Amino acid sequence: MTKEMSCRLRDRANRVIPGGMWGHQRAAAVPSEFPQFFDSGHGARLRDVDGNEYIDFMCAWGPMILGHQSPVVEEAAARQAARGICLNGPTEHTVELAELVVDTIDHADWALFQKNGSDAMTGCVTIARAGSGKRKILVARGAYHGAVPWCSPSLVGITSEDRAHILYFEWNDTDSLAAAVAEAGDDLAAIIVSAFRHDLNRAMEMPTPAFSQAARTACDKAGAALIVDDVRAGFRLDLGGSWNLMGIQPDLSAWSKAIANGHPLAMITGTERFRDAAQNVFITGSFWYGGAPMAAAIATLRELHRLDAPELMRAAGQRLRDGLDEQAARHGFELVQTGPPAMPLIQFLGDDASASLGEQFCNEALRRGVYMHHQHNMFLSTAHNFAEIDTALEATEGAFAEMARGRQRDA
Amino acid sequence: MTKEMSCRLRDRANRVIPGGMWGHQRAAAVPSEFPQFFDSGHGARLRDVDGNEYIDFMCAWGPMILGHQSPVVEEAAARQAARGICLNGPTEHTVELAELVVDTIDHADWALFQKNGSDAMTGCVTIARAGSGKRKILVARGAYHGAVPWCSPSLVGITSEDRAHILYFEWNDTDSLAAAVAEAGDDLAAIIVSAFRHDLNRAMEMPTPAFSQAARTACDKAGAALIVDDVRAGFRLDLGGSWNLMGIQPDLSAWSKAIANGHPLAMITGTERFRDAAQNVFITGSFWYGGAPMAAAIATLRELHRLDAPELMRAAGQRLRDGLDEQAARHGFELVQTGPPAMPLIQFLGDDASASLGEQFCNEALRRGVYMHHQHNMFLSTAHNFAEIDTALEATEGAFAEMARGRQRDA
Repeated sequence: MTKEMSCRLRDRANRVIPGGMWGHQRAAAVPSEFPQFFDSGHGARLRDVDGNEYIDFMCAWGPMILGHQSPVVEEAAARQAARGICLNGPTEHTVELAELVVDTIDHADWALFQKNGSDAMTGCVTIARAGSGKRKILVARGAYHGAVPWCSPSLVGITSEDRAHILYFEWNDTDSLAAAVAEAGDDLAAIIVSAFRHDLNRAMEMPTPAFSQAARTACDKAGAALIVDDVRAGFRLDLGGSWNLMGIQPDLSAWSKAIANGHPLAMITGTERFRDAAQNVFITGSFWYGGAPMAAAIATLRELHRLDAPELMRAAGQRLRDGLDEQAARHGFELVQTGPPAMPLIQFLGDDASASLGEQFCNEALRRGVYMHHQHNMFLSTAHNFAEIDTALEATEGAFAEMARGRQRDA
Repeated sequence: MTKEMSCRLRDRANRVIPGGMWGHQRAAAVPSEFPQFFDSGHGARLRDVDGNEYIDFMCAWGPMILGHQSPVVEEAAARQAARGICLNGPTEHTVELAELVVDTIDHADWALFQKNGSDAMTGCVTIARAGSGKRKILVARGAYHGAVPWCSPSLVGITSEDRAHILYFEWNDTDSLAAAVAEAGDDLAAIIVSAFRHDLNRAMEMPTPAFSQAARTACDKAGAALIVDDVRAGFRLDLGGSWNLMGIQPDLSAWSKAIANGHPLAMITGTERFRDAAQNVFITGSFWYGGAPMAAAIATLRELHRLDAPELMRAAGQRLRDGLDEQAARHGFELVQTGPPAMPLIQFLGDDASASLGEQFCNEALRRGVYMHHQHNMFLSTAHNFAEIDTALEATEGAFAEMARGRQRDA
């Protein structure tokens, strides 16, 4: 595995980009064995700038739900791109996409489009406040809902007023939720929930029926909005919305990542009750009406329907999960595999706080051509067919074997 | 001028998009004569969904600085799009673009990239607070800096805490600025200024030397950041930064719109003094590392350099301005033309508060194949050569003549 080009780019980046790279790609957060710069992708395969190829279980941290370079999506995007990137207003794709979304997503009576997941989440909060006339927003402690002041995981450069009306509860804890609702009093605007708990470096947790029902009931009582943040999980579990799994419909929902198979797009969907509020708030951006990402989203949603994509990804994810469990046991490791199979997290039982065993495993898998993450949930795509899963499992077999040898050497 | 398709799309949009469209494209804000949906663009020409073609003086509200479908930009974007839309990390374009930006923009020692102008402005504020350890942000009253809670022109769904640390001053008024600085006391984090005053429906105003120097001095005294919001004007006045015209360098600057000729990209640039702060804040997005818009930006900046684009646009804008003044005078109207010639605003002396004469003029120009705006500054591109300007002037001659005839009829 050569790293020459990647190292050279790291040096150059360090001079002109603070810290070498920012956000979730910041240089300091990239494990030293991992490539930092990429060249291309195709299907489930990813290539770094040094020409190393990997079976990719991150899918660009979510977006590539049909795999890299889906022909139907790229053709649709290119067709509009050849006509105009940004015009003086929307194209017909905006309307066609909104219609398709309203047909696809159970609670959706309307849609609005943005560029970032953070845009969609901030928009949901603004619409919830406009529609309810209230201010308090309840959020699960530790949940990631974006990288803007009211919800960023970092407090650097943030003021306390940015979160003046944010109250926290513990995920899946109905008592804690009830306490936060009580604290909001008659000022409850919204309860925000993720599709499931997918916080960094801890076991994933699906919502319990009691918790999801309590959230819905509390919003109904208060005239508040139940907001499902489907930015990360959207379209991988249920095309109609992730809380369909719980039999619960939100009032507002935020989407991004996978909606256009990597083309920059985000979306807010909502019910009739919040239509006027959505009309009255002012949210906009220079590139929000661009047609190519919307054409890409139309092609993506149609392809997801055609493939019954959630079931494909579930089956592939389950095959990966079963294979890893069998390998781990055979080599004397016990895994904690959590999350829906299409968005798996692999942890080692008894690992330390920085997931050292997990990192070691990912490093060994990387050397053998498989790109995984040890602390963040991973993502499958419809390009992860059984053949790719089985090839990946050959690599992880080697990774477990090497870890077992290392343990023997150390013993 | 047929409008059948546009009307049909309006009806469909009304069902699935609150109010028919959102933000600065909201259906209610589109003059009734104007098309709402667009098909394509080429150079300085724009085509609506009914096949009507216009010489376009809005450039998609700024982005299309090289005109629609610039071949060098589209080729560069398509080349990367064919390799990967979103990969697991940045491409080499990120580094190459940051290097080019540091070479191009006078104050820039580093760059960070986002998707929206609002992302860049919010990032500048966060970095200024992180770097200064202070909280107060000074903003010119009425200036547009984005559509997120701390700066949105609308208060619907916004809480007072969202603006707890925002203080306002009057543009070009050094006394008012000094008062706001005094009010901030020892808690001044930043002063935000636009490239020039380009508020909706009022005469544009360049910064005065006294005002721009006072802003710079106040920031230096307080250890605060002078932030130039170059989102709207960036690259049209001076490739090195718009306040180069004033001989003043900012500490931080926000860019978007024209940086990649319509491809979704935004940027923060800054000086060494704020490098650590920029490294320490957490700002990120799912699509922020995508290579195609960065490849487009590299091609755009190189082409802007090659063409000496600001001078081209200035000369074309001046030719338009001179022609309009001559036509208006000949037909008995007096225009107030303000702003730099590359970003002109046309107002009618003695017009009413809703710019009815301006709207009438734009409607008549539209019927004759010229797309202008009566309240928002317009934008020229390098595709607006003298031949296009002269063709546009033939249309505006007809518009003034029709208005003069109307006035005679009414008299």
